[in-house]
Amino acid sequence: MTKFFTALFLLIGIVSMQAQTLQSPDKNLTLTFSLTPNGVPVYELSYKNKPVIKTSNLGIETKDVPSFLEGFSMKDSKTSTFDETWQPVWGEQKDIRNHYNELAVTIEQKSVQNRHIIIKFRLFNDGLGFRYEFPEQPNLTYFVIKEEKTQFALAGNHKAFWLPGDFDTQEYSTVTSRLSEVRGKMKEAITPNASQFPFSPTGLQTPLMMKSEDGLYINIHEAALIDYACLSLELDDKTMVFNAFLTPDAQGNKGYLQAPTKTPWRTIVVSDDARNILASKLILNLNEPTKYEDVSWIKPVKYIGVWWEMITGKSSWAYTDLPSVKLGEIDYTKTKRNPKHAANTENVKNHIDFASKHGFDAVLVEGWNEGWEDWFGKSKDFVFDFVTPYPDFDVKYLNEYAASKNVKLMMHHETSGSVRNYERHMDKAYQFMVDNGYNSVKSGYVGNIIPRGEYHYGQWMVNHYLHAITKAAEYKIMVNAHEAIRPTGLSRTYPNLIGNESARGTEFESFGGNNPDHTTILPFTRLMGGPMDYTPGIFQTQIKEFNPDNTSFVHTTLAKQLALYVTMYSPLQMAADLPENYNKHLDAFQFIKDVAIDWDESYILEAEPGDYITIARKAKGKNEWFVGGITDENKRTATVDFSFLPKGKTFEAIVYGDAKNADYINNPQAYEIKKIKVTSKTKLKQNLATSGGFAISVK
Amino acid sequence: MTKFFTALFLLIGIVSMQAQTLQSPDKNLTLTFSLTPNGVPVYELSYKNKPVIKTSNLGIETKDVPSFLEGFSMKDSKTSTFDETWQPVWGEQKDIRNHYNELAVTIEQKSVQNRHIIIKFRLFNDGLGFRYEFPEQPNLTYFVIKEEKTQFALAGNHKAFWLPGDFDTQEYSTVTSRLSEVRGKMKEAITPNASQFPFSPTGLQTPLMMKSEDGLYINIHEAALIDYACLSLELDDKTMVFNAFLTPDAQGNKGYLQAPTKTPWRTIVVSDDARNILASKLILNLNEPTKYEDVSWIKPVKYIGVWWEMITGKSSWAYTDLPSVKLGEIDYTKTKRNPKHAANTENVKNHIDFASKHGFDAVLVEGWNEGWEDWFGKSKDFVFDFVTPYPDFDVKYLNEYAASKNVKLMMHHETSGSVRNYERHMDKAYQFMVDNGYNSVKSGYVGNIIPRGEYHYGQWMVNHYLHAITKAAEYKIMVNAHEAIRPTGLSRTYPNLIGNESARGTEFESFGGNNPDHTTILPFTRLMGGPMDYTPGIFQTQIKEFNPDNTSFVHTTLAKQLALYVTMYSPLQMAADLPENYNKHLDAFQFIKDVAIDWDESYILEAEPGDYITIARKAKGKNEWFVGGITDENKRTATVDFSFLPKGKTFEAIVYGDAKNADYINNPQAYEIKKIKVTSKTKLKQNLATSGGFAISVK
Repeated sequence: MTKFFTALFLLIGIVSMQAQTLQSPDKNLTLTFSLTPNGVPVYELSYKNKPVIKTSNLGIETKDVPSFLEGFSMKDSKTSTFDETWQPVWGEQKDIRNHYNELAVTIEQKSVQNRHIIIKFRLFNDGLGFRYEFPEQPNLTYFVIKEEKTQFALAGNHKAFWLPGDFDTQEYSTVTSRLSEVRGKMKEAITPNASQFPFSPTGLQTPLMMKSEDGLYINIHEAALIDYACLSLELDDKTMVFNAFLTPDAQGNKGYLQAPTKTPWRTIVVSDDARNILASKLILNLNEPTKYEDVSWIKPVKYIGVWWEMITGKSSWAYTDLPSVKLGEIDYTKTKRNPKHAANTENVKNHIDFASKHGFDAVLVEGWNEGWEDWFGKSKDFVFDFVTPYPDFDVKYLNEYAASKNVKLMMHHETSGSVRNYERHMDKAYQFMVDNGYNSVKSGYVGNIIPRGEYHYGQWMVNHYLHAITKAAEYKIMVNAHEAIRPTGLSRTYPNLIGNESARGTEFESFGGNNPDHTTILPFTRLMGGPMDYTPGIFQTQIKEFNPDNTSFVHTTLAKQLALYVTMYSPLQMAADLPENYNKHLDAFQFIKDVAIDWDESYILEAEPGDYITIARKAKGKNEWFVGGITDENKRTATVDFSFLPKGKTFEAIVYGDAKNADYINNPQAYEIKKIKVTSKTKLKQNLATSGGFAISVK
Repeated sequence: MTKFFTALFLLIGIVSMQAQTLQSPDKNLTLTFSLTPNGVPVYELSYKNKPVIKTSNLGIETKDVPSFLEGFSMKDSKTSTFDETWQPVWGEQKDIRNHYNELAVTIEQKSVQNRHIIIKFRLFNDGLGFRYEFPEQPNLTYFVIKEEKTQFALAGNHKAFWLPGDFDTQEYSTVTSRLSEVRGKMKEAITPNASQFPFSPTGLQTPLMMKSEDGLYINIHEAALIDYACLSLELDDKTMVFNAFLTPDAQGNKGYLQAPTKTPWRTIVVSDDARNILASKLILNLNEPTKYEDVSWIKPVKYIGVWWEMITGKSSWAYTDLPSVKLGEIDYTKTKRNPKHAANTENVKNHIDFASKHGFDAVLVEGWNEGWEDWFGKSKDFVFDFVTPYPDFDVKYLNEYAASKNVKLMMHHETSGSVRNYERHMDKAYQFMVDNGYNSVKSGYVGNIIPRGEYHYGQWMVNHYLHAITKAAEYKIMVNAHEAIRPTGLSRTYPNLIGNESARGTEFESFGGNNPDHTTILPFTRLMGGPMDYTPGIFQTQIKEFNPDNTSFVHTTLAKQLALYVTMYSPLQMAADLPENYNKHLDAFQFIKDVAIDWDESYILEAEPGDYITIARKAKGKNEWFVGGITDENKRTATVDFSFLPKGKTFEAIVYGDAKNADYINNPQAYEIKKIKVTSKTKLKQNLATSGGFAISVK
């Protein structure tokens, strides 16, 4: 009897509520918004009549004022269409079309002095974005978020490519499993990290990539995350409903807002073709156009660095072996130098020579500044000052030498998570860069955050990361922030954010290795929000060759390392290996030298998350094309359809592929380079080894 | 039987431990340090053979490494003597003698890899200072303090002048009671404040003034509080033992230390004459000499301000009546101005005229900058930018006008407790001051701290306040910080810290009134650590005379307001009333104009905490003397012994006293001014009204 009533009640509810429907421009996607009989806002989304998101609640639970959860009635509803094409400062394509239909519903809570909010939906051909807006009104100004109550009710027990939800790190291996298996696999998935706080046995991170049994690819993330906590998802694995889970602050609160204001966009990219997920520009489109009037100083960067030798344990960041130091009190000129200190003038000079010889833009140097002796894990407040070089690093000389070689030095600001200290020194640190010829900085946030109790992904830190970016812009400095919040398309608005880490990068190849499928997943997950400083290009995959203490090996073939320059889009690309290793394979190295880092157009040729990706791109302003193809632990034969080439013309292509006997474990360095002729009609079959790949340059 | 054993055990213990004894230079004070049989360090202190501190534990409880509590054995012990005279940049006397005997005991914990610490005692004629030192050593570097376990075991149920212990405010009325009565009076003592966190029903603040039944005056405080949490005291009211209670951070931890390091000094000032407590320079002496090479820019300041009119409710800080604003988004030129906005060019110009006419150094202006509409209680992060004036405040014109009148403008930086925001803007804010002719700043920390979860008196904020002071010094700016940590003598080291609030100031006379005994206690409590910007000089004690909505009245006579310029030592003195009120009493105002703010010598003539204070001081570098005397709610006759004057010479003195019929409630403005002749032999009898006072200038 109870059940019957419930059903009847719902039926009446559905009839009585004013459902609003919106279609994507191509009509493949349909969004429905409505209010339940209790006045709870709900939405649902379908793709070609297949359910993507079933009826799901919307709302915000607050701490100090009545919540935005129920008791809403319809006040107003507006639809509109938008269609423009814009040009990014840098990107995968020179023109980006921003085409959507919009539904903005204004709903009010009569019981709360007619307080009203707007829920804004933008429906693109490739997916949905929606956000909450809190207009200026007499009875709503300041409020504290207890939890965002957005739901994503899935239509099935999808296959998911997931990371454990965590307030402090995204540096986990991706687990591929059914959603129902998440709980069982969680414990194993939580591998150690320098700073971590997994929040739930079914908590997952975004971007979350899923595939339904009926072949729909669904990606959930967020866009334009500004001064708000990071969105994670907590799965109800009985109902397959995801509930939003925001990162809290030191007191457990999730956000402090002042109307008029708005949340970030919640995004759902959908297609029945995996290639469309990679091609989606929905997240960029949901961000605001750039706020900078002058962007001429923002340029893609190809670089090498004094870095891999420390990551692999061959060299050291610290100048001494002292167990602890106090900046301003220690006189390093009176200490004993560790001969393994890599950031010394001679070594950097050699790197500048190599960069200059091979046409790189910049040389990153880590470990150049005082304080590395006890930088990590000590909850140390004043750990770096960002302006004082170790005695063996002659910053003035190196700046002049680099300039004479037409190379830039790339700054490194490791904060050790001590962000008050970084903000205190930020102006002087950026000015030091300007004074010494640096125009880009790799910043780092390793370890627990100070102020203690804050997390990497809470509102406090989200605010900080953007502060670091906008202040850098005042100095015309480009930022590549590691361990920072994963990107949400903000580089459209702040294009000096040219890179982020926020996932397991190549460094983990030195810490036991990344899974062979790792880079076949990242473009569907981490890269959805923006480029990653993945630092590919490791030729000497056996690290013990130069550091016998390190038995890790890179879990790819050499040829796959080349392919990553195309498959892992970034305006910032490192050739991460040691110059000595490149000198042994200058023929293969030629591809890294040649490959573009900014593009007129991109063509997703083949893609299946966790299995393979093949992408072609046309270099910005040049008749040059580059193709990259990778596979997971399985061999495969890729098909490169060259129809993206201009018709009726023959081009010379250089193909860098796995040799026949190549294998990522036993024979990773076996590659073949061959020259072939291609036209727009060519369909090249290319064999890939286990965790193999290929790269092609076309001129 | 058990008791007998315990006693025997203790006896053996006392015999076996190596007790160290130290005497003060005048031999009145005796300190004994020893280790209990369990290796717990303990100390005791006596004055003229009367116990001041009975056997009390020393130690630090830590969170991550073994605690520094027990298992200690004696490793080394050193005694030494120090005697020097130094000259403060500003102060109550031009020469300060720093004379002590020192005992430094090194004790080690053999069970913790021979880890050792030093406890350093300095015994002056006026009291004891001691601290913990953590030398550099292989097995001790970083540690987190759970609690400092220092005890102060009192010898009786003393009379105490106390404030409720609180992590966020000292703005309570002092309660005078026996220690045994603290618990019963606590609830009533905790009056509302903009930010408060009382921590215990027997928690008290320092400086804590006490008087024993046998006439000993005992003051407990701390000196040189740097990068450590504020010391409070928790009373065990069964045993009359005070236990140290440090202010925690957002996670409940009390301090993050890195050896080599040291705690602040714990201070016990003792005498059988209350005047010696006020004369004590022990706390200053325990601070380091100034770190600044150039102190020529640091000068005492006498000032007026656009302030009392807002405090009393006559005028407003905010430019508009808008309920909320967002800096950088609001255009104030398009808003409706509140006609009560006091920080307008015309009003400030008038204040400059008044200041110039009467010889004041500076004019404080509050409410000059954008953001006051919703500055308080909103947990707002970006509340002020400290550089953008409201449209009706012409900073450039006023700077030029003030300069032409030989007057400085005094800056006001209210942070609203949002210290990340303040630190982000600090450099630009100080530079703005330099650019616009300001050389001193009144800073404020009203409300709860952001980062949220931190307290005003935790290590995080203690670190911030000093950061603000040392950074100000880079710009040659003097700091007067309100709602900051109470001072601990740091102005010796950082003499640009020319003032603090950190107690109930005159503003509370507009919020219901201060108790008549308030200023007879403050010099024994709050002022022990450093000067207070008390802002005396209110002539119109009935606030309803200019704001009918405010029925508060000042709980003193007018003459007592004059006396405060002498009894409440500060290098920063405000004439806090409205110019219009001074213009009605220019004869009395003459004393404020005349009184010095820097001194060659001070003479504490009469003093009893809670009852009365009479002090004479000689102006710095001049043959001018000023005397102030105050009383509590009781009338009294003060005796001014002029023996401090040079012998054999007659001087003219102007006496500003309460009129015969004066009374702080019914007739507060009744004063008499008379000229008399005085010599070094004069003993003047002067009558004080209820909550009355007198001031004398001698030339």
